Amino acid sequence: MYCLLKLAPLFLAVAVCNGWLFGDFVGKQKEQDEISLWPLPQKFQSSAVAFKLSPASFQIVHAKQSSAGPSCGLLENAFRRYELYSPLFTFEPKVYDSDLVELQVWVTSADPKCDDFPSLQTDESCELFPFRLETFSQLVYEDYYGVNNINKTDISDFPRFAHRGILLDSSRHFLPLKVILANLVTMAMNKFNVFHWHIVDDQSFPYMSRTFPELSQKGAYHPFTHVYTPSDVKMVIEFARMRGIRVIPEFDTPGHTESWGNGIKDLLTPCYSGSSPSGTFGPVNPILNSSYDFMTQFFKEISTVFPDAYIHLGGDEVDFRCWESNPDIQKFMAQQGFGTDYSKLESFYIQRLLDIVAATKKGYMVWQEVFDNGVKLKDDTVVEVWMGNKMEEELQNVTRAGFTTILSAPWYLDYISYGQDWQHYYKVEPLSFPGTDAQKKLVIGGEACLWGEYVDATNLTPRLWPRASAVAERLWSDKSVTDVGNAYNRLVQHRCRMVKRGIPAEPLFVGHCRQEYKGL
Amino acid sequence: MYCLLKLAPLFLAVAVCNGWLFGDFVGKQKEQDEISLWPLPQKFQSSAVAFKLSPASFQIVHAKQSSAGPSCGLLENAFRRYELYSPLFTFEPKVYDSDLVELQVWVTSADPKCDDFPSLQTDESCELFPFRLETFSQLVYEDYYGVNNINKTDISDFPRFAHRGILLDSSRHFLPLKVILANLVTMAMNKFNVFHWHIVDDQSFPYMSRTFPELSQKGAYHPFTHVYTPSDVKMVIEFARMRGIRVIPEFDTPGHTESWGNGIKDLLTPCYSGSSPSGTFGPVNPILNSSYDFMTQFFKEISTVFPDAYIHLGGDEVDFRCWESNPDIQKFMAQQGFGTDYSKLESFYIQRLLDIVAATKKGYMVWQEVFDNGVKLKDDTVVEVWMGNKMEEELQNVTRAGFTTILSAPWYLDYISYGQDWQHYYKVEPLSFPGTDAQKKLVIGGEACLWGEYVDATNLTPRLWPRASAVAERLWSDKSVTDVGNAYNRLVQHRCRMVKRGIPAEPLFVGHCRQEYKGL
Repeated sequence: MYCLLKLAPLFLAVAVCNGWLFGDFVGKQKEQDEISLWPLPQKFQSSAVAFKLSPASFQIVHAKQSSAGPSCGLLENAFRRYELYSPLFTFEPKVYDSDLVELQVWVTSADPKCDDFPSLQTDESCELFPFRLETFSQLVYEDYYGVNNINKTDISDFPRFAHRGILLDSSRHFLPLKVILANLVTMAMNKFNVFHWHIVDDQSFPYMSRTFPELSQKGAYHPFTHVYTPSDVKMVIEFARMRGIRVIPEFDTPGHTESWGNGIKDLLTPCYSGSSPSGTFGPVNPILNSSYDFMTQFFKEISTVFPDAYIHLGGDEVDFRCWESNPDIQKFMAQQGFGTDYSKLESFYIQRLLDIVAATKKGYMVWQEVFDNGVKLKDDTVVEVWMGNKMEEELQNVTRAGFTTILSAPWYLDYISYGQDWQHYYKVEPLSFPGTDAQKKLVIGGEACLWGEYVDATNLTPRLWPRASAVAERLWSDKSVTDVGNAYNRLVQHRCRMVKRGIPAEPLFVGHCRQEYKGL
Repeated sequence: MYCLLKLAPLFLAVAVCNGWLFGDFVGKQKEQDEISLWPLPQKFQSSAVAFKLSPASFQIVHAKQSSAGPSCGLLENAFRRYELYSPLFTFEPKVYDSDLVELQVWVTSADPKCDDFPSLQTDESCELFPFRLETFSQLVYEDYYGVNNINKTDISDFPRFAHRGILLDSSRHFLPLKVILANLVTMAMNKFNVFHWHIVDDQSFPYMSRTFPELSQKGAYHPFTHVYTPSDVKMVIEFARMRGIRVIPEFDTPGHTESWGNGIKDLLTPCYSGSSPSGTFGPVNPILNSSYDFMTQFFKEISTVFPDAYIHLGGDEVDFRCWESNPDIQKFMAQQGFGTDYSKLESFYIQRLLDIVAATKKGYMVWQEVFDNGVKLKDDTVVEVWMGNKMEEELQNVTRAGFTTILSAPWYLDYISYGQDWQHYYKVEPLSFPGTDAQKKLVIGGEACLWGEYVDATNLTPRLWPRASAVAERLWSDKSVTDVGNAYNRLVQHRCRMVKRGIPAEPLFVGHCRQEYKGL
């Protein structure tokens, strides 16, 4: 892919894959005092040469030579999003010599991939146009007179890690679609490329299944107002795709499944109090064939609804007490020769589940316990390291075993404290664990997790941003980008940019934005 | 004041001062499962007798006998606010026997006080109609069919403490008017009656002074977009008055005044580095007559702009280092015989300031340091206890000296932590310090303070509510109302009520509201 900038009256060829050049023309010298790129590109060189953008004349267009044209939804949609930030339109604009009048997008590959979903294999340095437009938009700044300017800037950019995720939890609290979409917008501003959708859990089951509608009918907080319909889910996936973001749904089993039990009879283990059932239920019942029949049908649906190559299968925090109380489970344990090691029963369940999901041709992600318990995993499994203690040891172990891994342990953003905790997230170095280069390469990224116990539509967005932006830069920029003071200065401006675009990103510290948030 | 409820076809006389009765009619029995009064009234007795409110027929009106009528802005405005929650209107509503069709307000005193400002002396059990309407609205609940019902309920209510405040800080971050007004609305829902407006501080001076316009021109973050014009201030005061809320502005001196120095030459003390000025400035210069001339003119304006009988004069956290560095100050200290005790110089300044403000006929509030330093205070001074260590000792000392006091030390809501910190605020007992009954009576209330270092329009409202609601109940309800479990159940519903009314009050824990927040 190329991008061309058209300067009146000249054309400029710029931007070949990860080589970017915004203007190579000696124009009027102008001080650029407001560059605030976030996350910082791998290489960039700004100059004092500035061009003006008139809202009346500037436009983003397809280059004549491009293999993509107006039928390419991905590009067309991106053009419109970024032209929104220059709202004026007149029929006969005056154009001056130092005006930048066009950004031309020239897709050079035969297949512009307008309808593809982003994946772990996407070459973000070459293919991902939306992220480039974001960079372009961040280079535009208002001068003293309120005129949009862009300085001549050389950029060579690509992400350090391929998996840069945000986990949102729509079970502890239902998150209205508006909130999810707004956070996808903000993820794109921060070059996050994975939405890890922890969509169901103990507390509620808002995913509306076509195969098992009773799951949400009986498991959601409300069967109509607090669910994600198939149409909602499609919208989220398409909205994300337009922004270069993958959607990886998590359906966590065998624990964290209380809400599943409302709709599906006998799915969960009946807990016993002494010799009789207590009326409460535990994890998925791993000794019944019906459980696996259900999972087979359920994940068949999930594998078609969600286009990403990966599904997150959870597998964390299984509480053994209910299994231990149940005489049928006890009998099964004895038959299988598991003794009293219930992690073996957990592995027995997970192993069968993984085989079921593998048969749908999907890859899977799992929380670290699944690896720790010695379950046999497919080679392309992604193990997510979330436990804060012994994090480096775990990364070592997982990568020594040859599995790819992502890190979320240091980035549980639901934990809040007074002050600038973004700095803690920023200072994390994901590859600081002892290991070979080959091991380090298996760390493909990380995720900022905003678990939902204390978060809903009222406070999610300001709690997540700009704290997650710290994680964004850590996962995108070069390892050497660690200066907290420099980051602070850029992040202050980046958060005002988010606010200007309508996102209530909270302040880092005292100060102001030129345009304050207009909502509540 | 009386309130009459008109039940079709009967009239019911109810509500005489703090005695309330919502219906005394034996109607259809109905389970009321959603009563969630907050803060809890002093006495209340609910019954299962329910009346229906039709949005088409129910209205709040002036009783024929009332001394107030449509010209009474205070009541008219309150009627409209609370009718907003029943939006339907038809011309010929059908009325059934168990319908509640009117709430009639009968002001019995000769003077309905429609144009008065609330004050410390207001008898909230008798006079404050807006708070009663809030209680009424909280008794209305939707039944299974979505129909509004109200149960027969006896209420006798009055606040335990007369001063129930919220401190907002519009200096560390500018707070757009919309945010301030929304929080006044929410204060009224929680029966807070004092808006302590910490309007200026070191970081910015958004108050636009008619006498000294250069204060905000040079001291605000932006002279046009980040200021409160005289009209804005009037609007805040009137908006608050309509809701029974006093506005007490704080103009904190001699410390916390850096932003004042931008507009007023020589107001601040020049700091010295060795034998020459360092170019930085410290607290108000207490040795120049010009400082007192300025304060005289400035507080003359403030005393007319703000109608409340009290002004908060600050007096906290004076940093002596700049004074110590300045040779002119050193000389003055020697002349006055202060030795090297700079708290004497601070007291010297404050004493003169208090005399200046007393001459405007206003009372004043001060932070505890002013009392601690032995400044001579007028008898009606309110001392605000804010330091967390030795809080009980301070309350003892202040009240032993015969001063009224308010407590904010345990309620600094800018400090955040993971989990349900509202419970800590709730468990505080303001009168637990050792002291006589006479001393306890001098504690007239408290304030929840949301200092602005990390808070602006993006996150203020969800950070304040419902955490401040815990303080609201502590200051309103009886001392015996301490059951956290009961409070949790009511507060969960109260926070959903705030959300339903458009306020993004954050969740207490997992769960949902029937109507989730519609913004971001």
